[in-house]
Amino acid sequence: MSKLNVTQKLIKAHLLEGDMMTPGKEIGIKIDQALLQDATGTLVQLELEAMGLKKAQTEVAVQYVDHNLLQTDFKNADDHKFLLSAARKFGLWFSRPGNGVSHPVHMERFGKPGKTLVGSDSHTPAAGSLGMLAIGTGGLDVAAAIAGQPYYVKMPQVMGVKLTGELPDWVSAKDVILEMLRRYDVKGGVGKIIEYYGPGVDTLSAMDRHVIANMGAELGATTTVFPSDKETKKFLKAQQREEDWVELLPDEGCEYDLNDEINLSELIPLIALPTSPGNVVAIEEVAGKKISQAVFGSSANPGLRDFWIAGAIVKDKSINPDVSLDVNPTSRQIIQNMIDNRAFANLIKAGARFHQSGCMGCIGMGQAPASGTISLRTMPRNFPDRSGTKDDQVHLVSPETAAASALTGEITDPRDLEKIFDMKYPKYEAPEIEIINEDMLVPPAENGEEVKLEKGPNIKSLPTIEPLANEIDVPVLLKMGDNISTDEILKAGAEVLPFRSNLPEISKFAFTVVDETFYDRAMEAKEKEGGHIVVAKDNYAQGSSREHAAIAPKYLGQHAVIANSYARIAWQNLVNFGILPLEFIDEADYDKIEQGDTVSFKNLREDVENRNNIKVLVKKKDAENVEFETKHTLSDRQINVLLKGGIINEFKYRLKKERVQEEV
Amino acid sequence: MSKLNVTQKLIKAHLLEGDMMTPGKEIGIKIDQALLQDATGTLVQLELEAMGLKKAQTEVAVQYVDHNLLQTDFKNADDHKFLLSAARKFGLWFSRPGNGVSHPVHMERFGKPGKTLVGSDSHTPAAGSLGMLAIGTGGLDVAAAIAGQPYYVKMPQVMGVKLTGELPDWVSAKDVILEMLRRYDVKGGVGKIIEYYGPGVDTLSAMDRHVIANMGAELGATTTVFPSDKETKKFLKAQQREEDWVELLPDEGCEYDLNDEINLSELIPLIALPTSPGNVVAIEEVAGKKISQAVFGSSANPGLRDFWIAGAIVKDKSINPDVSLDVNPTSRQIIQNMIDNRAFANLIKAGARFHQSGCMGCIGMGQAPASGTISLRTMPRNFPDRSGTKDDQVHLVSPETAAASALTGEITDPRDLEKIFDMKYPKYEAPEIEIINEDMLVPPAENGEEVKLEKGPNIKSLPTIEPLANEIDVPVLLKMGDNISTDEILKAGAEVLPFRSNLPEISKFAFTVVDETFYDRAMEAKEKEGGHIVVAKDNYAQGSSREHAAIAPKYLGQHAVIANSYARIAWQNLVNFGILPLEFIDEADYDKIEQGDTVSFKNLREDVENRNNIKVLVKKKDAENVEFETKHTLSDRQINVLLKGGIINEFKYRLKKERVQEEV
Repeated sequence: MSKLNVTQKLIKAHLLEGDMMTPGKEIGIKIDQALLQDATGTLVQLELEAMGLKKAQTEVAVQYVDHNLLQTDFKNADDHKFLLSAARKFGLWFSRPGNGVSHPVHMERFGKPGKTLVGSDSHTPAAGSLGMLAIGTGGLDVAAAIAGQPYYVKMPQVMGVKLTGELPDWVSAKDVILEMLRRYDVKGGVGKIIEYYGPGVDTLSAMDRHVIANMGAELGATTTVFPSDKETKKFLKAQQREEDWVELLPDEGCEYDLNDEINLSELIPLIALPTSPGNVVAIEEVAGKKISQAVFGSSANPGLRDFWIAGAIVKDKSINPDVSLDVNPTSRQIIQNMIDNRAFANLIKAGARFHQSGCMGCIGMGQAPASGTISLRTMPRNFPDRSGTKDDQVHLVSPETAAASALTGEITDPRDLEKIFDMKYPKYEAPEIEIINEDMLVPPAENGEEVKLEKGPNIKSLPTIEPLANEIDVPVLLKMGDNISTDEILKAGAEVLPFRSNLPEISKFAFTVVDETFYDRAMEAKEKEGGHIVVAKDNYAQGSSREHAAIAPKYLGQHAVIANSYARIAWQNLVNFGILPLEFIDEADYDKIEQGDTVSFKNLREDVENRNNIKVLVKKKDAENVEFETKHTLSDRQINVLLKGGIINEFKYRLKKERVQEEV
Repeated sequence: MSKLNVTQKLIKAHLLEGDMMTPGKEIGIKIDQALLQDATGTLVQLELEAMGLKKAQTEVAVQYVDHNLLQTDFKNADDHKFLLSAARKFGLWFSRPGNGVSHPVHMERFGKPGKTLVGSDSHTPAAGSLGMLAIGTGGLDVAAAIAGQPYYVKMPQVMGVKLTGELPDWVSAKDVILEMLRRYDVKGGVGKIIEYYGPGVDTLSAMDRHVIANMGAELGATTTVFPSDKETKKFLKAQQREEDWVELLPDEGCEYDLNDEINLSELIPLIALPTSPGNVVAIEEVAGKKISQAVFGSSANPGLRDFWIAGAIVKDKSINPDVSLDVNPTSRQIIQNMIDNRAFANLIKAGARFHQSGCMGCIGMGQAPASGTISLRTMPRNFPDRSGTKDDQVHLVSPETAAASALTGEITDPRDLEKIFDMKYPKYEAPEIEIINEDMLVPPAENGEEVKLEKGPNIKSLPTIEPLANEIDVPVLLKMGDNISTDEILKAGAEVLPFRSNLPEISKFAFTVVDETFYDRAMEAKEKEGGHIVVAKDNYAQGSSREHAAIAPKYLGQHAVIANSYARIAWQNLVNFGILPLEFIDEADYDKIEQGDTVSFKNLREDVENRNNIKVLVKKKDAENVEFETKHTLSDRQINVLLKGGIINEFKYRLKKERVQEEV
């Protein structure tokens, strides 16, 4: 272990628990920085409130507001006020609404080579562009990190991708990550950290690396890591904080668990077809199809260069009359620099519609395309419906391709601009120093404890969760089958999402997809019988990682789930919110338990703690009682969390202990 | 009638029917220009389709897209595509989405002194700033004007307002119209055209006059008229179309029906409190209250100066951290000029959130304020809920007041900036020539007849309306009371509005507020008995002028309404869509007819045409039949329209006659 790659160096410097040299085993690492966005952040802040946190323990924690910027009623504006008050109270920075997309703003103003970062957003790995270990995770994990707890993750394999050569004209960083997606598709990175190295890395600017690290999330990778080198230094100098630079290079002769290589010189313009970022083909395969929209921006192509090149391509031309050119400028800082380098004026003059700085169409918050028409986007995802239009035809491309196509009105290989418009590839020269503007970053308050949380009528504090009960005698409210998804447990969508900060309201949607009577029955069982359990088969709670699929059932009195097996993240979420995830020992016992039965557990706490098999007595209405055994597969850490009723309680307990010790 | 005011000159030059010197009597005037926006325009274009229009007959007709720019699903983007295809087909200009707010763009690129304009938007009078006669009206009136028909209106009284003096520092055009609203409130202008004259007019730029003319709509005025003078010439020169200027001044010694005077030198900064533009007080009465938002833009303060002054006030400062500063840049052209004069950079640097050019929060399409907090807006209206937030506290102010308050975080008299920041009033110097960009204005197509309308799945052609039947034997589906509003006939709101281009769908909401079974009963009656009528008391169909409250009932088979009396605009709308508005001769007859009765009319066409009393035979299920007489009060023109089944049919008839004559 003397020769380390960058990933290993980062982990070694932060390792608190576990063995980093064994992929698949849980490690606990120290977290230096945390990042929240508003869509997930309101719940995280409510969790911090429930934890009783006094002050963020990370070196830097930032609450961004970039998702819900369209204010069509009071809720988003109320959320913004709440988040500002919470940031002040708990000692976070607050990036004001419209200041910009979290990932590039974080990279510009806060990212530091050599540091760790967790964020409640899946594109958090973008900060890997600076030589950071940056991981996207669930909100409660981020809350715990802010509260000073380690972050636990199964040690991934490290995949080294050697870059050689140099990008040809009209080909840019987006095409590099599209090439990776062409090779590995959307699951190829699962359980891996992707580390880029080799001479080709030197030819990529830090913001180019951001593009690649950001969309590493689309490979399913845990994160992406780049070295911190001269380009990183150049970037930090342009950001007027060169002092934050440290060099972080892989040791010569270091090894990777897996290996691949890309010769940048051989890349061509690529495009991801609907409806997966992994659906990648060469542009020429689909060139000539009519488009209705070209959208620039988002955290996948956020850099000044990306807007500049688009502006340079459309300069003194006019976009096709049947195309809407929408620009989603990444941040206020980038707008100021775009004004300075004429990119803004060039785009406006050619016909662009400029929107406030934020995620916009990337998360379906505006600029949904017309029915059945093709939208080219520099964004990271093109899942079906994500744009807001049911039969959308979103294609993912580089800024070069989007700009070329906006001019012609059809999917166009940007290399063809040389013929069509007699155009030479515009060469970007990055400014040595960018215009910096931190006025919209509100610093943590001095007097956090005195700040009152500002809660609009739709924002409700989290209720207290009881510790795991020792004896339970409750009904089985649902018996489900295989592959129940978190969408079935708590659906998303426009009807439900506005209640993300209002647990009593959002809980009304729990399991409605499976059984519309669930909420009423659960509330009755909670009041009269002290709660309930549910039963399922394999792969329970698969799909999206949303925490509400655990906290809402808990709010409705769920003590336990019995299933054959669990999806990984949801299993962790259940424990985090105090629901016991039990497994059938004999899968045939599934047939012994029915909806409407009552289950009885005795001596539950001791059995959980000691990893005893857990007896379930099933009381039937019209038949004889039956009994069978179940088990759990929790770690010691998880057992401790569960017994206390979840992570929030566990933190409160720890805080109380510390205070008692201080007093002694 | 030798000495004429500007209003009289405009009407005289366009009078086709009636007597312009008798206020209250209907006149018909020739229309030179027409303006559509997208929210009302889709129906107008469907009306043009139903009319079978070949080519717009106005000198200039423009379809703007400024209302529905937030695309959260396919509908708005589909509408934009449809409107582009319709503009091409029917010979209209098309101002592309995000190109700007209709009124200022029209003024900049198309408005001409001495011309008439109708627009399907209530702020159309803004063009009065250029010495035009510009009237906002219902969509079908605009469709008729585009088809070459006269516009009919009861001749208003002309109110002359003499302006003297000159605006003091920190006071601007918005304060002039707020002063008018303070004096006359929101009904003071009803039935009037307001004409400004006198030496004070010379001190106001054309765009200042736009501010005053635009918000004349809030007085309830038919329109506002300014002379065309040197300032108008200067404006047109800056727009690089000086050749469109003609002088249009009031004759010396001309008279007005009503008179008032404002000394500009005496004005102070004013503010309209929630929830009416007529709720005007001096700023000092409410100074010091905390604000959460300041919004700039909309057609009420659209000018380059208005943004420049805001930028100059916040220059090198930062807005209060508890305030969201939202900028709604009026048009692409204004953005380009704002980049040029640094207003854009100044505002961005201070913390502004820039939105695409359009109406935005002015019509509740975004940037709803946080619950119960104060929003200062340079917009024209602050009706309750209009912002999108139920308990909103919208105050209307000048750009000076909004900018001052955004800095301090509380309602601030801009004159206090001299003390607070030692600031002098920034003096605006208008550029002699503005940057012009017409690329986003798509000209009318050469080959309109070949263009196919592009209709997304939510856009449906209008069905054919049958001519008035001669014999009817149909049920009375509803018997209602006094003051039934158009909201009760066809409600607005987020659930209903998306179907504005889909008559079959929107008709499902007809009368749901009154009776949820109406739609089903009406469809059954339409199929089995050939239609229905409804009965009401006084002031039927009061409230908003929406045409859907006539066309949807017609679609559901409504032949006639019998009521004591009708609201003016809705009465006209009923006729326009072929519904006969009958009146009880003896109001006691209201008691003779019940929901569920069947009514029988014989010889209806002849009786309507000859103004005979119209006999209604009421067949009772369980009682003896009764009979009573009704009447109508339609003009000859309206009788002709009604007999043919409405304006659309009347136009088709005329078109056919012309073709036959051509062939002969």
